[in-house]
Amino acid sequence: MRMVDIITKKRDGLALSPEEIRFFIDGYVNGSVPDYQASALAMAIYFKDMTDPEIAELTRAMVSSGETVDLSAIAGIKVDKHSTGGVGDTTTLVLAPLVAAVGVPVAKMSGRGLGFTGGTIDKLESIAGFSVEMNGKQFVNHVNRDRIAVIGQSGDLVPADKKLYALRDVSGSVESIPLIASSIMSKKIAAGADAIVLEVTCGSGAFMKNEEDAVRLAETMVQIGKHVGRKTAAVITDMDQPLGFAIGNALEVKEAIDTLQGHGPDDLKELVLELGSRMVLFAGKAERLDEARQLLEQVLEQGKAFDTFRQFIKNQGGDPSIANHPEHLPKAKYQLRLPAQSSGVVAEMKADQIGLAAMLLGAGRATKEDTINHATGIVLHKKVGDSVARGEALLTIHSDSEHIDQVARQLNQNIMIADHADKPVLIRRIIQ
Amino acid sequence: MRMVDIITKKRDGLALSPEEIRFFIDGYVNGSVPDYQASALAMAIYFKDMTDPEIAELTRAMVSSGETVDLSAIAGIKVDKHSTGGVGDTTTLVLAPLVAAVGVPVAKMSGRGLGFTGGTIDKLESIAGFSVEMNGKQFVNHVNRDRIAVIGQSGDLVPADKKLYALRDVSGSVESIPLIASSIMSKKIAAGADAIVLEVTCGSGAFMKNEEDAVRLAETMVQIGKHVGRKTAAVITDMDQPLGFAIGNALEVKEAIDTLQGHGPDDLKELVLELGSRMVLFAGKAERLDEARQLLEQVLEQGKAFDTFRQFIKNQGGDPSIANHPEHLPKAKYQLRLPAQSSGVVAEMKADQIGLAAMLLGAGRATKEDTINHATGIVLHKKVGDSVARGEALLTIHSDSEHIDQVARQLNQNIMIADHADKPVLIRRIIQ
Repeated sequence: MRMVDIITKKRDGLALSPEEIRFFIDGYVNGSVPDYQASALAMAIYFKDMTDPEIAELTRAMVSSGETVDLSAIAGIKVDKHSTGGVGDTTTLVLAPLVAAVGVPVAKMSGRGLGFTGGTIDKLESIAGFSVEMNGKQFVNHVNRDRIAVIGQSGDLVPADKKLYALRDVSGSVESIPLIASSIMSKKIAAGADAIVLEVTCGSGAFMKNEEDAVRLAETMVQIGKHVGRKTAAVITDMDQPLGFAIGNALEVKEAIDTLQGHGPDDLKELVLELGSRMVLFAGKAERLDEARQLLEQVLEQGKAFDTFRQFIKNQGGDPSIANHPEHLPKAKYQLRLPAQSSGVVAEMKADQIGLAAMLLGAGRATKEDTINHATGIVLHKKVGDSVARGEALLTIHSDSEHIDQVARQLNQNIMIADHADKPVLIRRIIQ
Repeated sequence: MRMVDIITKKRDGLALSPEEIRFFIDGYVNGSVPDYQASALAMAIYFKDMTDPEIAELTRAMVSSGETVDLSAIAGIKVDKHSTGGVGDTTTLVLAPLVAAVGVPVAKMSGRGLGFTGGTIDKLESIAGFSVEMNGKQFVNHVNRDRIAVIGQSGDLVPADKKLYALRDVSGSVESIPLIASSIMSKKIAAGADAIVLEVTCGSGAFMKNEEDAVRLAETMVQIGKHVGRKTAAVITDMDQPLGFAIGNALEVKEAIDTLQGHGPDDLKELVLELGSRMVLFAGKAERLDEARQLLEQVLEQGKAFDTFRQFIKNQGGDPSIANHPEHLPKAKYQLRLPAQSSGVVAEMKADQIGLAAMLLGAGRATKEDTINHATGIVLHKKVGDSVARGEALLTIHSDSEHIDQVARQLNQNIMIADHADKPVLIRRIIQ
């Protein structure tokens, strides 16, 4: 078998055989297939796509390119959740304790993120003492007892994906649905998920700019799940404006606590119930979706989800009192209100541009070497569809510097006020 | 400027600016653009094509990636000829002395070839003593005095093309018209051509399998010529069956001598007149095409082209007596006739497969390290459209081994005899 023939075959629009896909992935990881052939194949895949069986085989080959996590010591069906990301993405912080509270084991492996704000671990590290450092045994014990633990990514999971993603990033083939789908699914499968619930975001703050692409990506991932025997469902959500109100690490932790106490933003609550009820269903903790949702609403109302969050923080070395006193979280030096420049209805809040403003405040990383400021960020007071009077605060900027001209300009340029605007629909579609 | 942005731009179907094209070529040659980005861009070009101005700029950037030949010491307009190759490709051996005989300076730089038979230099080296080793001054003197010399490729001409072609060869983007066209044209321009006449072959024995692709390639090269100020014309020729009768190195030299003496194959003669008259026209040695053709027919009839050939061989250290005694060329040990297996009309002689048979006899190189057997090859006695009786010789195999079962099988499988077949048209189209 020759790699150049595999490239040419894909270039000519033919489906690759399982052997050819494995030849590529195995060879790429062991170095016998050089970067210049992998990048050419990735580009050919960008143009010619892959069939569902090809994508499933690619996913399998990537999973077996490295170590996999064995979660068999944890009782129950392990359901993992993945989001394609966005701005104000507080979902995991609420969702994990919520489903754990109804008995779904949450054995989460998480990473630090580049982008507008940190990843889930960065956010949790706003809490003094919180750590994801633990050994496998501690991890299993926590999940078996309290149904929840988050551990840092360790070991050599899916080295093929690490290598291929880094290559695609510099050779122009990031935006390929089969390659994105297999990258996401291979990591979830290698991390031990029995079932997977996906949030596929779309809009200005998401990787997928339009609903059509988001649906294609979601369908592709659900198909992979079918082929590899993992129940998979995807929720397509709007990420044209930020999710919830808070954008920033400690600010999002506070918002998560608020939500677990029953007074968070409506859109965030709706989303965690939508995703969570599917996780509960997949985990076999309910027979029907409406029943699953009821269970979640109960543990939320009864404070059980909040208690689980508190225990989770404690288990991982964090100060649990923060749950009752989020005012003890890191705080930025300045809180500066951004007034509306005219009266009307908020018509647009470009999520990516608002995320960029949060990054300028230090809430996110542009490169791996950057350090995160846990305190800074933005809290919205208005969202698309809300009325606002001239001079009324649109949002509050949490900054460690008084000099926020650039941030304010960035925000003003990307928040539009008009005569009329509808509230956007958050949950666009369900793919399963 | 970032290479990944250039790749993405082309991937998205946009035209690259001259600066972007130069950034790519300069960076690729100096090593700042790695292979994996170059192969991804080549694949994107394969899918998204390039505009004529882009291709012209690519050609210019490749030319200036290395040394260029200065032929200004040679009087007159230097017209070079290039063929995209085929089987029985004796053209240059006849064409060069023919146009030189009417005063067109032929200052040819040539290489050794991979493939069915050797390149022009390999063929000429069938003649005892013949050498392409000479210094620049000798080369210029020969051309100024006798209008003809062939020198081996030296110096660092178009390093961008060498590097890029080698990369495309292993990464699946050889078959890209803009990349093929710029590769060919950059080499001709770097070698000092003022004007260029192209033979673009199509059919089973050619790189372009169908006329449509050949026309696209020819049009692209003619457009490059226009953009870079080199008069360029292309002749599209049929290469479904071999050209002429002879396939092999010494065998083709003999055929060239026969043709220069006025009794070569009709198709070969027609082709050299077609190509040659355009070279004469471009060189300013005639005002009209028919006049140019008349000049060529005259020097052929009067023996002047033959005399030029003889002088050319002598100038380059070869034994000129070979021109009158081609029987002194290297001869294979065995001459074995291949009889027709049925009576009828020759309907098909697959050029590539017959070329492969010649290679099996040792006439060509599969790898750079292979040595060529100058004596071996095939001489056809029939061509497509000719009647043949069962048992009559279709061709003669010139072999150094008696064991020709494999070669005979290869030939029999690829020569079809039917009830009826038309003679193919050799000159398909002219692009200018």
